[in-house]
Amino acid sequence: MNLSQRAVEIQASPIRKLMPYSINAKKRGIHVYQLNIGQPDIETPQEMIDVYRNYDEKVLAYGPSQGLDLYRKALVRYYKKHQIELNEDEIIVTTAGSEAIIFAMMVTCNPGDEIIVPEPFYTNYNGFATMAGVKIVPLTTYAETGFALPEKDKIEAVITDKTRAIMICNPGNPTGTVYTRQQMEMLAELVKKHNLYLITDEVYREFVYEGDPAVSALSIKGIEDRVLMCDSISKRYSACGARIGCIVSRNKDIMSAILKFAQARLCPPTIDQLAAAACVDLPAEYTANILAEYDKRRNIVYEELQKIDGIVCVKPGGAFYINAKLPIEDAEDFIIWMLENFHIDNETIMAAPAEGFYATPGLGRNELRLAYVLNENDLVKAMNIFRKGLEEYIKTH
Amino acid sequence: MNLSQRAVEIQASPIRKLMPYSINAKKRGIHVYQLNIGQPDIETPQEMIDVYRNYDEKVLAYGPSQGLDLYRKALVRYYKKHQIELNEDEIIVTTAGSEAIIFAMMVTCNPGDEIIVPEPFYTNYNGFATMAGVKIVPLTTYAETGFALPEKDKIEAVITDKTRAIMICNPGNPTGTVYTRQQMEMLAELVKKHNLYLITDEVYREFVYEGDPAVSALSIKGIEDRVLMCDSISKRYSACGARIGCIVSRNKDIMSAILKFAQARLCPPTIDQLAAAACVDLPAEYTANILAEYDKRRNIVYEELQKIDGIVCVKPGGAFYINAKLPIEDAEDFIIWMLENFHIDNETIMAAPAEGFYATPGLGRNELRLAYVLNENDLVKAMNIFRKGLEEYIKTH
Repeated sequence: MNLSQRAVEIQASPIRKLMPYSINAKKRGIHVYQLNIGQPDIETPQEMIDVYRNYDEKVLAYGPSQGLDLYRKALVRYYKKHQIELNEDEIIVTTAGSEAIIFAMMVTCNPGDEIIVPEPFYTNYNGFATMAGVKIVPLTTYAETGFALPEKDKIEAVITDKTRAIMICNPGNPTGTVYTRQQMEMLAELVKKHNLYLITDEVYREFVYEGDPAVSALSIKGIEDRVLMCDSISKRYSACGARIGCIVSRNKDIMSAILKFAQARLCPPTIDQLAAAACVDLPAEYTANILAEYDKRRNIVYEELQKIDGIVCVKPGGAFYINAKLPIEDAEDFIIWMLENFHIDNETIMAAPAEGFYATPGLGRNELRLAYVLNENDLVKAMNIFRKGLEEYIKTH
Repeated sequence: MNLSQRAVEIQASPIRKLMPYSINAKKRGIHVYQLNIGQPDIETPQEMIDVYRNYDEKVLAYGPSQGLDLYRKALVRYYKKHQIELNEDEIIVTTAGSEAIIFAMMVTCNPGDEIIVPEPFYTNYNGFATMAGVKIVPLTTYAETGFALPEKDKIEAVITDKTRAIMICNPGNPTGTVYTRQQMEMLAELVKKHNLYLITDEVYREFVYEGDPAVSALSIKGIEDRVLMCDSISKRYSACGARIGCIVSRNKDIMSAILKFAQARLCPPTIDQLAAAACVDLPAEYTANILAEYDKRRNIVYEELQKIDGIVCVKPGGAFYINAKLPIEDAEDFIIWMLENFHIDNETIMAAPAEGFYATPGLGRNELRLAYVLNENDLVKAMNIFRKGLEEYIKTH
């Protein structure tokens, strides 16, 4: 029995693929500090948990395909706090950011069309692109320059008559890079000039540690009908398991079409939307406290990395990842070696080899993404093990 | 700005498209009995609601892409009760039955490939097919014969070198038809002979009112590697808003590939899975009581329909729908007319015009799907309004 071509081609998650090594290590009694996955250890707001705890409807019913009115109204308030004026009809609630991205690809591209994405990029874009039959055209960015967006002419060089959109993640996963307003304006010029869409993944909006807030594509004038913004509550409220996201566009045709995709799958989870709605009116200190916590972690990881000879890593301004180039050849081999051979006091670490974040073959083999989602104490221990392990690995390889 | 071809082509939900007329009626103070959508009024089990109410984790975290171990183990027990022996690795939890169906299409078909589906069929198959680039080849069945599965030669006549699968919904939405073991064996022979997959939507498994239980494709010998079974808790536990389904296959290659699709979207909702798990061990009376309730409703609707001159409708044995052929030309026009013009004591009814359930143009225009998801009292009133309205409509048109 043959499988479909996309079933054969779809990338296995490079973030999750080393899990068997981690499970084996745990079976041998080794504690594994997980820096490989963006699962925050920060507590989900009690206000959100309380919605589940207080649920008392008799029938857990379908909601509207576009999302519950109550939650879409809450999202209008949320974006207003970020200086983005929207009305409810410009928002469709999705089953996590994942569904928002697949809807964005499906609605803008025919099979065979191209989307330009700066690499390294969130690896699951590959999976969604395979499902949608879309070709991701990578635009390489470099650890040496903090994964800064390439200049305009470099981007124009990869635009073809198949290009339908430029897609960015800002602040970036796996890079932590925050694009400037100037860069966002440059992208706006490009999409206007070449008649493209701009798809943005802004799930790390709140996670900016220095300078100005992240610039949403929705705040750029003149490209209102070109922007599809994908969002999720997973990171900002530490609620990855709720699977609530949304897609936002001011282009009415786009929204009408996405609504049809949304109708096919009926609706996003009902109670989880109610729970998400409870987070919108959290006090500003909620985010400030989380940010302060992540900033401490960012400094720990960055400073520990700086102690390593030959590391290439510009301090990133956002999200909760650092993507570093290591003075070794094969980061995946290093992580497997760590899980199998290296531990201090029965503890070791796991991180995500960055090769899977690149679409260009061969790139990123000596890079690693570290998610600083552990508390300070654990992170200090984990980074010590990481550094000692790397020294030992270099000596023995 | 152009949209993609699939965005233009994807069908708007015919079940939901008359909603504006219903909303307008409600604004004019008319109560609308909703027979148009499969949203049961039966209470969600308290055991399930209690899981939400007792949730006390600190971090609402991602689960595994294949679903929570706890829930997959529960599903093994569930299927065992239905004489289907599975192990956990043969089950991947999905975000509702919808995601199971789109995974099934994506993993078996290349864009342009064909899936044979008896029509009338659950209209959202069209949306998923458009997303997956799959062509649905309809196999017409008829109200006159209770939408019985066509004979083998009729099915073979539509198999081409593009055919990858036969897909059925059993018990059927919108028909209520339950296929016999003999028919299932015939399908098994066909998929073996022509090297096809058999995709089944078995979300109405419990809803069989007479004779033997529904025959799962998973219980047919000799096609273990060909069956992809799509399931959902929405109907059986009246939990449509939880968005928990699953896909089951004994074909290891299929399951490995589906896992990669599943990894791209990370995981299904976490708490909703915990809630679903609590339903598996409900006593057998839970289902028996619901079935008795639905059976009463089925009789009410069927008997009221029988009073209508010229109606064509064989009493269906399963699910909670009756698809009837009316003695009029245009069922959609009739429903719009009911919502706009006909009411008794300020009450009217809404049902789903069946044309949207057919892929063959022009078929089903004079058919209507009635979902008997209201309590007895309401249903009696609704069917009286329906009958009187139809008489009046026939007189005036």
